[in-house]
Amino acid sequence: MNPQSNSPTAKQPAGSPLLVVGSLALDTIETQTSRRAEVLGGAACYASFAASFFAPVRLVGVVGQDFPAAHEDLLRGRKIDLAGLERAPGRTFRWAGRYAADFNQRTTLDTQLNVFETFRPKLPPAYADSELVFLANIDPVLQLEVLNQVRRPRFVACDTMNFWIAGKRPELVRVLARVNMVLLNDEEARQLSGKDNLPAAARVIREMGPAAVVIKRGDAGALFFSQDGAFAAPAFPLERVVDPTGAGDSFAGGCMGWLARTGDLSPDGIRTALVVGTVLASFAVEDFSLDRFRALDAAAIRARCAAFADLVRFAAASF
Amino acid sequence: MNPQSNSPTAKQPAGSPLLVVGSLALDTIETQTSRRAEVLGGAACYASFAASFFAPVRLVGVVGQDFPAAHEDLLRGRKIDLAGLERAPGRTFRWAGRYAADFNQRTTLDTQLNVFETFRPKLPPAYADSELVFLANIDPVLQLEVLNQVRRPRFVACDTMNFWIAGKRPELVRVLARVNMVLLNDEEARQLSGKDNLPAAARVIREMGPAAVVIKRGDAGALFFSQDGAFAAPAFPLERVVDPTGAGDSFAGGCMGWLARTGDLSPDGIRTALVVGTVLASFAVEDFSLDRFRALDAAAIRARCAAFADLVRFAAASF
Repeated sequence: MNPQSNSPTAKQPAGSPLLVVGSLALDTIETQTSRRAEVLGGAACYASFAASFFAPVRLVGVVGQDFPAAHEDLLRGRKIDLAGLERAPGRTFRWAGRYAADFNQRTTLDTQLNVFETFRPKLPPAYADSELVFLANIDPVLQLEVLNQVRRPRFVACDTMNFWIAGKRPELVRVLARVNMVLLNDEEARQLSGKDNLPAAARVIREMGPAAVVIKRGDAGALFFSQDGAFAAPAFPLERVVDPTGAGDSFAGGCMGWLARTGDLSPDGIRTALVVGTVLASFAVEDFSLDRFRALDAAAIRARCAAFADLVRFAAASF
Repeated sequence: MNPQSNSPTAKQPAGSPLLVVGSLALDTIETQTSRRAEVLGGAACYASFAASFFAPVRLVGVVGQDFPAAHEDLLRGRKIDLAGLERAPGRTFRWAGRYAADFNQRTTLDTQLNVFETFRPKLPPAYADSELVFLANIDPVLQLEVLNQVRRPRFVACDTMNFWIAGKRPELVRVLARVNMVLLNDEEARQLSGKDNLPAAARVIREMGPAAVVIKRGDAGALFFSQDGAFAAPAFPLERVVDPTGAGDSFAGGCMGWLARTGDLSPDGIRTALVVGTVLASFAVEDFSLDRFRALDAAAIRARCAAFADLVRFAAASF
């Protein structure tokens, strides 16, 4: 009997390892009430951390010489495998943004690609057997390079953004043809599909390859479309939102971590995973950077999973 | 044994009568692909029709001399009690609007109050015993006048709009102090409460009187706040939306009709009612005016209730 195998805070969680590739960043965030400069961020960072509560994580990305050792220690403390984290000459990727009062709109104030400009992902040989892969939002050319280095993935998910949809569409289409699931926000889904209606957009995107399409809608929750129909997961309502940066990446990471843990890649398995992702996203926004995640344990995750179940429960109308 | 008591298409449905007061209108609607001129509309019209599948409805409102007899016949065909429908000298209330491609934004092109300008609701004496009341979006002064004519209501719900929140706030506050439930959209909730965050807005509004606050978010669904916590009902995703006019009123009407039918006014009873309202709203948007409702029967409502349950079902994560 292994008492750790059932706990998301286990030193080395159960499940298949999840390969995550994407950005690590130093973020400068302005909200209506606060400002934080150069805090730990980046899609791969949020996704890895969220997934690490459920499965072993292998992280592929790049940081500069200025990336604080404490940040690496934080990830290593979650038993995230950093063999694929390159430390390149130069400065770490930086992003700065400002949020409107209701947090549903943000303005990018600054983007400095720095070491990301010349990044070419090189997977450690041991990563080639990864069965679950999450390609966070990076250049689709890099997403393809990662996929080419994984031998026989069972389940690949990707994210993307308006910049690639507009600027590298052919490359993105090639990625989509090779992934099982795509997660993107509503505007991106509309832009990619040319459809305003979200179920119609999902249908068009499914025809491009991914059997599973997840449309993220911020505080309006997420919609999941598959051969099995639609699933709607509302966002968890929070009276105090501090910083929504990384919510979508935490959502994806929690989801993929859960899939890696259970191995149930069916539409029903994905439904449960999306609820787990919703819960992780709800924690991510409660503090700046990954600060809320640092304090998170299995009990808190379980309690919020129960609170989510209560949020959506109802007795069916019978007549 | 009464075979009709269990069917929403019963000639006279089971349950306590629901009193509905609000507008009947002739709407001119422009979408990206179509235009309909002077079709039957108005909040009270949509709400009454939606409620009529579940409970007897008493309608209080006003129309002009030009209101087509066929529209009255349509409502009467649903066994909606029109004793409270005044036919005043002059023209019926008219509204014209245009929808953006994603249907989430609309522009009002024209509003002609006409007979509504001088309307003072006078309830038929038989309506004074109404136990359930829905005050659709009209001048809060009129909402109060209606309430003053109902002897001992068990459950009162109201809707409102930005125009009254800004222009007749004291009167609206008096209405809110006397209702059990308010349904309003997210922007109205923010405007009324002064809070950007929706759970915070709901808390402030609950302190103004209504134990139940329902925030309508269009295709992002609805949030319900009560002493029992929060409930989230996603909208039913539809690939083909024809005209969203009246969706919120159909939502409220379906909800109130269900409450009138069951008499279960507890937070759990309201959860079920809001799902029924979500289902009725999903039908309303599938065609112009009340055209989809005309073709609706119990079997179709039951089937979509089942589809909604499937939309939100998931197996809880256990770890």
